[in-house]
Amino acid sequence: MKQFVVVGCGRFGSSVAKTLFKMGNDVMAIDGNEEIIQNISDEVTHAVQADATDEHALRSLGIRNFDVAVITIGSDIQSSIMTTLIVKELGVKYVVAKAQNELHAKVLYKIGADRVVFPERDMGMRVAHNLVASNILDYIELAPDYSIVEISALEEWEEKTLLELNIRSRFGINIMAIKHNNKINVSPTAKDIVHKGDILVVIGHKDDLRKIERG
Amino acid sequence: MKQFVVVGCGRFGSSVAKTLFKMGNDVMAIDGNEEIIQNISDEVTHAVQADATDEHALRSLGIRNFDVAVITIGSDIQSSIMTTLIVKELGVKYVVAKAQNELHAKVLYKIGADRVVFPERDMGMRVAHNLVASNILDYIELAPDYSIVEISALEEWEEKTLLELNIRSRFGINIMAIKHNNKINVSPTAKDIVHKGDILVVIGHKDDLRKIERG
Ligand SMILES: Nc1ncnc2c1ncn2[C@@H]1O[C@H](COP(=O)(O)OP(=O)(O)OP(=O)(O)O)[C@@H](O)[C@H]1O
Ligand SMILES: Nc1ncnc2c1ncn2[C@@H]1O[C@H](COP(=O)(O)OP(=O)(O)OP(=O)(O)O)[C@@H](O)[C@H]1O
Ligand SMILES: [Ca+2]
Ligand SMILES: [Ca+2]
Ligand SMILES: [Ca+2]
Ligand SMILES: [Ca+2]
Repeated sequence: MKQFVVVGCGRFGSSVAKTLFKMGNDVMAIDGNEEIIQNISDEVTHAVQADATDEHALRSLGIRNFDVAVITIGSDIQSSIMTTLIVKELGVKYVVAKAQNELHAKVLYKIGADRVVFPERDMGMRVAHNLVASNILDYIELAPDYSIVEISALEEWEEKTLLELNIRSRFGINIMAIKHNNKINVSPTAKDIVHKGDILVVIGHKDDLRKIERG
Repeated sequence: MKQFVVVGCGRFGSSVAKTLFKMGNDVMAIDGNEEIIQNISDEVTHAVQADATDEHALRSLGIRNFDVAVITIGSDIQSSIMTTLIVKELGVKYVVAKAQNELHAKVLYKIGADRVVFPERDMGMRVAHNLVASNILDYIELAPDYSIVEISALEEWEEKTLLELNIRSRFGINIMAIKHNNKINVSPTAKDIVHKGDILVVIGHKDDLRKIERG
């Protein structure tokens, strides 16, 4: 079992900390704000109020014994950089840091961050895609032009068999699974019928997938 | 083509606005901060400095003619609520709003938001999952206990055929696609070989998927 320390418990940091703890991990949460620490204390292993840019404070919390540190300090770029540097120098093996922008990310990598994340930017891209194609519920980008998408069945597909719909040759898209009434069919056959409210999982080229998107 | 207005251009809002514009849509971006507006002006159709809680300002920008409004004002919950109310009352059909927490979300829905998003919380959950199972690159949750995951091939799978690996009966998981050297095979057969560095797309029950996760 790995030990995690999450530094900064804003919206992103607290979600990381709580999720790791829910998954059964040991999680120390650090924030400079006492109220935030009180609120999160029941949902992590240890919650500690401390200034993360204070090397002595971090050292005395035994930070070097943690396997993974997640630095989520947001708006204050200077504190984010200082904290990442200290945590890395104290010997944490794997350090993830949240960045505001590309320049910030570059600095974080230079001083030793093993991974940099952009939660707001990434989720902004997801929400934008979902707004333009509102029948696309979720997706995995496998390659720049190839994706798997979770899509609500189009109205014109309802009560037709996969054979009748012939989606593969009409659109160049493969159907990988169909969800009907919360039951998932992972090996759909030509005889399977698409019902109202069904959700399909399809894989294909971006240009082909666009043909089945609806605004 | 839909018309979008994005209110608030922090990290999340600016990502939504820029992505929508890149996808070929008409996008008006509004923020109270002049510097932010100057920075984003080349990456959206119109960028306007205005206080979004000022109903007259929004009215004179013709907000009611937009199909979709995305309210991304963050820390200032009161402004987020006021703006959502005004935009909805001005007649925008579909209003998406970003929430800080569940209580905030409840209020947003009550006053007419059509969809509420939690970008930091959602991305925090994604990053936490990825940290615990570092070979899981991305996932789509199809049902609470059923997911599709994009996974790096395990070392012990390398240079074996799917027949030899027999993943379906050993783990109860279906392989839906294999990515090798950026080429995606969407109908893998028993004779296909898994190579070092390959990425697999698999679908299965949460408990079964956990067996192929690595820390
Ligand atoms: N030096 C520091 N030591 C400890 N905690 C800190 C320090 N600087 C900032 N924090 C904490 O980090 C958290 C995140 O910072 P901030 O709110 O600026 O970022 P944010 O990116 O807007 O957060 P989010 O979007 O995740 O809510 C806050 O709870 C803040 O108290
Ligand atoms: N009343 C308002 N009118 C116009 N813009 C506003 C108003 N209130 C806030 N904003 C803008 O909304 C943007 C997002 O607000 P804020 O930075 O508080 O949220 P945030 O959740 O921390 O953002 P993010 O995490 O997306 O960076 C800011 O650029 C801010 O200038
Ligand atoms: Ca903030
Ligand atoms: Ca944020
Ligand atoms: Ca991906
Ligand atoms: Ca989903």
